[in-house]
Amino acid sequence: MFIDLNSDLGESFGRYTLGCDEQVVPLVTSVNVACGFHAGDPVVMKKTVQLAKEHKTSIGVHPGFDDLQGFGRRNMHLSYEELQACVLYQIGALDAFCKAEGVNLAHVKPHGAMYNMACKDKNMAKAICEAISQYNQQLIMLAQESGELYRSAKEMGLRTAAEVFADRAYEEDGTLVSRTKPGAMITDPEEAINRVIRMITEGKVRSITGRDISVKADSVCVHGDGAKALEFIQKIRSTCKEKGIEIVSLSAFI
Amino acid sequence: MFIDLNSDLGESFGRYTLGCDEQVVPLVTSVNVACGFHAGDPVVMKKTVQLAKEHKTSIGVHPGFDDLQGFGRRNMHLSYEELQACVLYQIGALDAFCKAEGVNLAHVKPHGAMYNMACKDKNMAKAICEAISQYNQQLIMLAQESGELYRSAKEMGLRTAAEVFADRAYEEDGTLVSRTKPGAMITDPEEAINRVIRMITEGKVRSITGRDISVKADSVCVHGDGAKALEFIQKIRSTCKEKGIEIVSLSAFI
Amino acid sequence: MFIDLNSDLGESFGRYTLGCDEQVVPLVTSVNVACGFHAGDPVVMKKTVQLAKEHKTSIGVHPGFDDLQGFGRRNMHLSYEELQACVLYQIGALDAFCKAEGVNLAHVKPHGAMYNMACKDKNMAKAICEAISQYNQQLIMLAQESGELYRSAKEMGLRTAAEVFADRAYEEDGTLVSRTKPGAMITDPEEAINRVIRMITEGKVRSITGRDISVKADSVCVHGDGAKALEFIQKIRSTCKEKGIEIVSLSAFI
Amino acid sequence: MFIDLNSDLGESFGRYTLGCDEQVVPLVTSVNVACGFHAGDPVVMKKTVQLAKEHKTSIGVHPGFDDLQGFGRRNMHLSYEELQACVLYQIGALDAFCKAEGVNLAHVKPHGAMYNMACKDKNMAKAICEAISQYNQQLIMLAQESGELYRSAKEMGLRTAAEVFADRAYEEDGTLVSRTKPGAMITDPEEAINRVIRMITEGKVRSITGRDISVKADSVCVHGDGAKALEFIQKIRSTCKEKGIEIVSLSAFI
Repeated sequence: MFIDLNSDLGESFGRYTLGCDEQVVPLVTSVNVACGFHAGDPVVMKKTVQLAKEHKTSIGVHPGFDDLQGFGRRNMHLSYEELQACVLYQIGALDAFCKAEGVNLAHVKPHGAMYNMACKDKNMAKAICEAISQYNQQLIMLAQESGELYRSAKEMGLRTAAEVFADRAYEEDGTLVSRTKPGAMITDPEEAINRVIRMITEGKVRSITGRDISVKADSVCVHGDGAKALEFIQKIRSTCKEKGIEIVSLSAFI
Repeated sequence: MFIDLNSDLGESFGRYTLGCDEQVVPLVTSVNVACGFHAGDPVVMKKTVQLAKEHKTSIGVHPGFDDLQGFGRRNMHLSYEELQACVLYQIGALDAFCKAEGVNLAHVKPHGAMYNMACKDKNMAKAICEAISQYNQQLIMLAQESGELYRSAKEMGLRTAAEVFADRAYEEDGTLVSRTKPGAMITDPEEAINRVIRMITEGKVRSITGRDISVKADSVCVHGDGAKALEFIQKIRSTCKEKGIEIVSLSAFI
Repeated sequence: MFIDLNSDLGESFGRYTLGCDEQVVPLVTSVNVACGFHAGDPVVMKKTVQLAKEHKTSIGVHPGFDDLQGFGRRNMHLSYEELQACVLYQIGALDAFCKAEGVNLAHVKPHGAMYNMACKDKNMAKAICEAISQYNQQLIMLAQESGELYRSAKEMGLRTAAEVFADRAYEEDGTLVSRTKPGAMITDPEEAINRVIRMITEGKVRSITGRDISVKADSVCVHGDGAKALEFIQKIRSTCKEKGIEIVSLSAFI
Repeated sequence: MFIDLNSDLGESFGRYTLGCDEQVVPLVTSVNVACGFHAGDPVVMKKTVQLAKEHKTSIGVHPGFDDLQGFGRRNMHLSYEELQACVLYQIGALDAFCKAEGVNLAHVKPHGAMYNMACKDKNMAKAICEAISQYNQQLIMLAQESGELYRSAKEMGLRTAAEVFADRAYEEDGTLVSRTKPGAMITDPEEAINRVIRMITEGKVRSITGRDISVKADSVCVHGDGAKALEFIQKIRSTCKEKGIEIVSLSAFI
């Protein structure tokens, strides 16, 4: 039994520092690196790739909307052509730093509003998958199983990995409960860990309505902002070990 | 005897259109494609690469400062690390569109202020060449022979091509006469063509002080803005043919 | 009987030129000046204000989303606070150039996607109107009568002016027919002029369904891109004169 | 005897937080607010103006180069016209938030590379002063006495205030010792305070070469990043009180 741990990284920009990248990288198996659109800049990208290389952590593209002020979290409506080109651009930009370091890109996971919108919008999902497919058919699409990104990637013949969230409640259809609803966040660390382990081992999670639903878990999305977040990743790691679940990067088992 | 004709392209941005790319591409052998920093955007880059592919025109990266408002023509002082990463980023971004179209990147020619500053500043020249070298050692540095960009590329073992300008006067040391000085521009088309032909066939040009100086000409930089510019390229082409000079892209003879 | 003619201007940016501002300004009574977010830059803003001053044309703020690549035409979802602050910022920025020239700001008309979204979204409309109200209660909101921008401005006690479109078909509820529908554009210049005159003199227009609807016309929005557009403005001007309709800026009669 | 304490503020941007604004504002008498070019965004500007209003702290414009990635610290070469318009734009943008809150702008102090370049370049200094003069002749230029910004402002008839630095060494000509030189920074807090007090009370400071030079001190520039910096401001405040120096904003005594 295998699981990947993925985390968003390289979100600093110029004079602005964000996240605890140096602490997180050794603890996860995949990093999603911002590409200068919603966060990150060329120097930050270079350092983040070097850091991941050093710790043999798998590197993925984390493309976002060209909206630094909104941190890529504000919905933007791009045409199919604009979205496809904007993702292709970001993949290439990040890959340049990988080439310079002699490491390979492993996956793509869209960021923030681009991820959320594309999970619900088939056209957007296709634009993103097409960009990936045109660049490198070996890249793995990392997304929730119950969304258009995952489905489109499957349909287009891309490799896919399904991610789950430790700290979020699920609707019965497998989508995340909106943050604006009560109960959307799983705040008890123990409960969160138990849910993760069950998703990995049984492929099931209790939905917010109290029903067990099926959920595919190849990777757990973890946060790296602050001491508590880091501690939580440590707990997931130790619990997985106890349960005989091996923590490895996606390319080892996808 | 061979010569390449290179032109800056893909400088449109969003709603803004610049240049006569569709007319220029069939007339030149190399295009320098803007990468979204000083000009160009992902959609424009995609279309420009497709256009070049269609006409079998060789494609080069045209990295510039991140200064759209100044069109990359305002001097900016970046650190070595910033400049190196900013060039690497732009190379990768453009290469993504080349990969999507199944064509290769052939060369790199910095734009505007980045080109001018790096021709005089060894440190900047090295940062740019290092970015190229880290990405792909087969990429050709296209720059004036009498400048640090060309020299650094040579020293770093990169392939190099020397460009000349049909419409600019030269100082005795082979650098261009500053546009602010009288006589900086060669305005008579016939004189311009004669100078180009001499640079190609004899490797010599009359400097502004009246002395013949040596100059290496692998490529002629031509402009594509407007009917007159297009006519001028046509004249260079026909005169080269008459003189038995073959117009081919750099990779054919560098 | 009075009518104002308004046109979007100052949309050039750095090296990129857009529109025929010098030809349009003398023909209209109000200009909506881009503020550097969706188009325009400080130098362009300065020149546009000077041009309007020279021709005694009334000046308005034309705030847009911070999306130069999409020319402010892509829907973006900002929070109330972000939108309010972003409009306030743009008003102040343009007013700086007015102060420097000793002229007054007269009105505000949001641009593109911000205008269209706010016409349908009361919350956005209120954020925009609040920004105006906080800055200067004398500023006129220029928008379609049948939309939330106009309504919110009225409710907030702002001065309002209703604009109509010569080249667009109307739904029965007074909104514009979406450009994606057949018949959305009025392409016959004569028909367009007749419609405009009737909107001004009778306050009525034939909707796309064939019914006469009421429409308030204080200002006609005209385009300034190209010879045909300029000719069309000339025709509106001469026809208005024939019909005894005086063409004056909003502040003369609002 | 009066002294103003000024500090750069409002440098957060979108998701990125910088500085301890809430702690600093109550301790200083003037804040220099970033205007969205080198740092800050409309929402941050609004909050910063509100914070300053709450504590009756005097508000100044802190215009910078349009270079968020470089935090306005990279030299950029703008034309006279570009610089003048870029400063005017930023003054107006910040003033919009002041108007909305019913407070007045008091001064202008350029940021980073714009400040440093303009202190040495008369043409740049004039462009900046002209922007101020065109907007509001009551605005105070805050800059070092021994530089072109201060001189140009004087010549143009603007109100001027001279700032000194507690933590920087001075050359004999009154300019700051470059940070790259040894001894450029005064690292001992006690020495720093003693120097400040002497600059205020005697108008003298010991230069790096060991000579006493004249220096005009209307305002002390203090930093607000971190606990140590805050403690240092507290010490300046208490020492000033002991010495009978009143800490008030510029407009009280300029």
